[in-house]
Amino acid sequence: MFQTFDATTSPEQGPPRIAALRAAMVAHGVDAFVAPRADAHQGEYVAARDDRLAWLTGFTGSAGFAVVLADQAGIFVDGRYSLQVRDQVDTSVLTPVDWPKTKLGPWLKERVPDGKVGIDPWLHTTEQVEALEAAGLSLVYVANLVDEVWEDQPDPPVGKVEVYPVELSGKSHADKRSEVGKSLGTANAAVLTLPDSISWLLNVRGSDLPHTPSVQAFAILAQDGGVRVFTAPEKLAPLAGHLGAGVSVHPGEEFAGALADLDGPVRVDRASAPFAVVQVLRKAGVEVAWGADPCSLPKATKTAAEIAATTEAHLRDGAAMVEFLAWLDEAAPKGGLTEIDVVETLEGCRRATNVLRDISFDTISGAGPNGAVVHYRVTRETNREITPGDLLLVDSGGQYVDGTTDVTRTVTTGTPSADQVAAFTNVLKGVIAISRARWPNGLSGRDLDPLARAALWRAGQDYDHGTGHGVGVFLSVHEGPQRLSRASDVPLKPGMILSNEPGYYREGEWGIRIENLVVVEVAPKLDGGDEGREQLCFGTLTYVPVDTRLVDAARLSPGEREWLNAYHAEVEARIGPRVSQATGVWLRKACRPI
Amino acid sequence: MFQTFDATTSPEQGPPRIAALRAAMVAHGVDAFVAPRADAHQGEYVAARDDRLAWLTGFTGSAGFAVVLADQAGIFVDGRYSLQVRDQVDTSVLTPVDWPKTKLGPWLKERVPDGKVGIDPWLHTTEQVEALEAAGLSLVYVANLVDEVWEDQPDPPVGKVEVYPVELSGKSHADKRSEVGKSLGTANAAVLTLPDSISWLLNVRGSDLPHTPSVQAFAILAQDGGVRVFTAPEKLAPLAGHLGAGVSVHPGEEFAGALADLDGPVRVDRASAPFAVVQVLRKAGVEVAWGADPCSLPKATKTAAEIAATTEAHLRDGAAMVEFLAWLDEAAPKGGLTEIDVVETLEGCRRATNVLRDISFDTISGAGPNGAVVHYRVTRETNREITPGDLLLVDSGGQYVDGTTDVTRTVTTGTPSADQVAAFTNVLKGVIAISRARWPNGLSGRDLDPLARAALWRAGQDYDHGTGHGVGVFLSVHEGPQRLSRASDVPLKPGMILSNEPGYYREGEWGIRIENLVVVEVAPKLDGGDEGREQLCFGTLTYVPVDTRLVDAARLSPGEREWLNAYHAEVEARIGPRVSQATGVWLRKACRPI
Repeated sequence: MFQTFDATTSPEQGPPRIAALRAAMVAHGVDAFVAPRADAHQGEYVAARDDRLAWLTGFTGSAGFAVVLADQAGIFVDGRYSLQVRDQVDTSVLTPVDWPKTKLGPWLKERVPDGKVGIDPWLHTTEQVEALEAAGLSLVYVANLVDEVWEDQPDPPVGKVEVYPVELSGKSHADKRSEVGKSLGTANAAVLTLPDSISWLLNVRGSDLPHTPSVQAFAILAQDGGVRVFTAPEKLAPLAGHLGAGVSVHPGEEFAGALADLDGPVRVDRASAPFAVVQVLRKAGVEVAWGADPCSLPKATKTAAEIAATTEAHLRDGAAMVEFLAWLDEAAPKGGLTEIDVVETLEGCRRATNVLRDISFDTISGAGPNGAVVHYRVTRETNREITPGDLLLVDSGGQYVDGTTDVTRTVTTGTPSADQVAAFTNVLKGVIAISRARWPNGLSGRDLDPLARAALWRAGQDYDHGTGHGVGVFLSVHEGPQRLSRASDVPLKPGMILSNEPGYYREGEWGIRIENLVVVEVAPKLDGGDEGREQLCFGTLTYVPVDTRLVDAARLSPGEREWLNAYHAEVEARIGPRVSQATGVWLRKACRPI
Repeated sequence: MFQTFDATTSPEQGPPRIAALRAAMVAHGVDAFVAPRADAHQGEYVAARDDRLAWLTGFTGSAGFAVVLADQAGIFVDGRYSLQVRDQVDTSVLTPVDWPKTKLGPWLKERVPDGKVGIDPWLHTTEQVEALEAAGLSLVYVANLVDEVWEDQPDPPVGKVEVYPVELSGKSHADKRSEVGKSLGTANAAVLTLPDSISWLLNVRGSDLPHTPSVQAFAILAQDGGVRVFTAPEKLAPLAGHLGAGVSVHPGEEFAGALADLDGPVRVDRASAPFAVVQVLRKAGVEVAWGADPCSLPKATKTAAEIAATTEAHLRDGAAMVEFLAWLDEAAPKGGLTEIDVVETLEGCRRATNVLRDISFDTISGAGPNGAVVHYRVTRETNREITPGDLLLVDSGGQYVDGTTDVTRTVTTGTPSADQVAAFTNVLKGVIAISRARWPNGLSGRDLDPLARAALWRAGQDYDHGTGHGVGVFLSVHEGPQRLSRASDVPLKPGMILSNEPGYYREGEWGIRIENLVVVEVAPKLDGGDEGREQLCFGTLTYVPVDTRLVDAARLSPGEREWLNAYHAEVEARIGPRVSQATGVWLRKACRPI
């Protein structure tokens, strides 16, 4: 199993480690130390060595940080983790703080107004440091005090690295390096600190982290396309032939020295690069040119080869999902199934493809009230038996060499209530509104997000998350800069892959989410369409039936019904030939027009 | 008639006046002079005295400006007026310039790179002046050179002023002054230069301008709510009892001196106040605090009394519209009607209410291809006979003491084509999407605008104007700050009145627009709606039937059809009792459910 259900930490581990940290703080003369969940690469997953927050506190959520003072300590977590944190940490030593409502700067300013606040500048971005400075704190940049007291801290990961074939990427790394180098404009070089960016740029994939096949490294990209990579050289040594003359590999310890030797201006991303990078550049008198990671946008706009590859991955994954749904539809109404059974069976269906590299994140399998917990991850403690009649929400994905998938289906295991049908129908209307949308080139996710919500809004309902996030191709299942969200002003561009996942959650009762991945395309001309209006639209990547027993067909518009029936016809045509005969019978029924 | 169809200018008037202006430019030592359409109050309409652009050039559009150099002159007009300007000006002397695509600053910089550019600082806002300075121009602030050469220039208007009853406004001017004064925060006073703001604040209405009952004046509002008004004192003298001790009236000539005597900081709106105001304050050493006109937002959020008043005005106006539509439906299919006949009959129907104060703008009556001209105003030259079968687009409104209306209906005068029905249905879907919308408090017009366009977008179509503008109550038919537009980030607030007017225009063939006025309301709780989500919605003010012969009912969703039938039931119930018996028969038919 790629997924585990057991606790890997305990609340008892926190107090002695925090006591040790306090001793280190005294030795370094600081009155506070901030220990974030993030590593120097600011990704969603961290290596064992970088799992400092879990080691120090017991809290295993994917975001947050601890702040330790001499006589108190806070653990800052967002609404997703407000319950979990109380189970995982010793609250007599660590006080949970509601973040980001409560901001770190003011919290510290109130408690240590004139004190010295220690931070490890490799684990905080420039934006984060500036927010602390704006709060009037006196910051001290120290070595990482958690590392200092963590005696058996694991080594940095040296996961195997593989070449990502140009047949899948659609562009050689020489061409990518040349194009991104030219895009730097007046900057002589760019500092790359995001493993996804470096892996994409060099057409390589790694195994340093769970669920995300990127290679942990730093890099410097010159305007001429030359790249120096900083990581354990043995990871990339077998790929010397692939990397060629334009790419050199250096030990991670040489990164800071190489920064100091650069001719500026040097592009640095204030939202993702460690502040330590800026410190080194400033100290060496190298001019900093603020700008977004230059790989971010080209990585997000996929090549035709990447889209073809992930299309195939999605059909393969769709077939696994259909085998799973057919099993579930037979097994669940009989009773006795648990949420963990669902996770295990689904992973088994994906493994049966024989090419599953990993799951793309821990499967969310939420029955009844657990479905209303947006980021629910089942453990042995929370594992719930699925009572026939429960709604079951399953959000999952696979990592295949040719693509990353992410799909959510909500199914009934009995006779749904009128409220469930009404809400499911409105969530589906949102999915369809995004799927059918065409829009003028230039709009952003903010402009489309309301289309996904209008039906729920009319019912006095809404969901407290974005409508969609960017998705990579055999890379991170969450990637920027594109999003379908009120907070995103990034124009959507052809080739961007996004999730389309409206939902509705009735706390304590049930949750609904439907998620397909879509790809931005240039919209075809229509008869009667205006001349001279360039429009974009979404193509669909995910082909998995939607549970029509939860749809009130009488509340669909003619166009919505046409979309749903056409979608199900496509599901049957594309997935039918890929599933077992028995599942094929189930699929035909599931895809019947309404 | 409030509307005329005759030309009031001719191209011949331009050349000698421009020659005279050039002589004045030489006398003042400037190499260029900018003559905008705007007056010092930046409104949509100007008094005869301020109609400098029309006098100088012959061009009578509602926006634009002329720039005169020694050897050439440009007339800058936007896409609405690109045809009209060629008819109205002598293009051998004035070259039409496509504005705002071509910006004034760079245009001048190219032609007079080191020359002195004369402008009248009373006719340009700070924003506009800063844009010219950013282009590197050498500006010279001179007296208005057009006024200098305009020998028989009319006097400033001294239109009769009336008290606006507190029964209609819902709040005394003492209360308004006190509240707006308190809202100034750290500013000691605010400069008011918008006639709408001053008229709203003091509960007065005037007759200085066509179609807009505001009083032309400047004013200074102190933090304690005291107001000094600067305008011809005889206009306000009869209202001394109404104005009371908190409001004093001074001749317009004393405005600059009063500004110089202020204690700063003084709030000034950089987007609407004349730059001359800033010059006076700066010269006197008075600190300027940039900020929006403080009346703008409270004026936009109407009181319950204003909403009740305009509700009645809209029913009255709706009855006039229905009488007109019933006549049109009988007369148009017989042939022989012209666009001017339509304008005259409609104005007659409004006048028959006996309380029409003015039309709120020149009626747009566009048959066939003229319907595709978004801001079409019929003249004797363009007047088109309505061929049975033409689509006819009529956009009009009335000024009543209790409200300002603005309504557009598009009707068929024969058998519509499939293309017309498809486009009309999609435009109607947009109107309905806005009408039915509920949304979380805090969203702006930008967030709702896509709902109005989604159906057209799906057909490869769109319209090149906003979905809606703010509307006053017996004030301007176009008011800010609220808009339904991709360009508007102003949060919608209860009490704001907006137009809801999607359209579709097939150039050279026909045009479609459907427009209702709506008012933002707190949305009622719904069964099954989420606790703790405050939502807003629109109430409808306009009750006039939509031509269902142009609707493809089979393409409506169940919810859209329910809305349309419920709307027509309301039209019949509310307007039926207010029209003649014969019209009532027609109305019942027009309101039949589909």
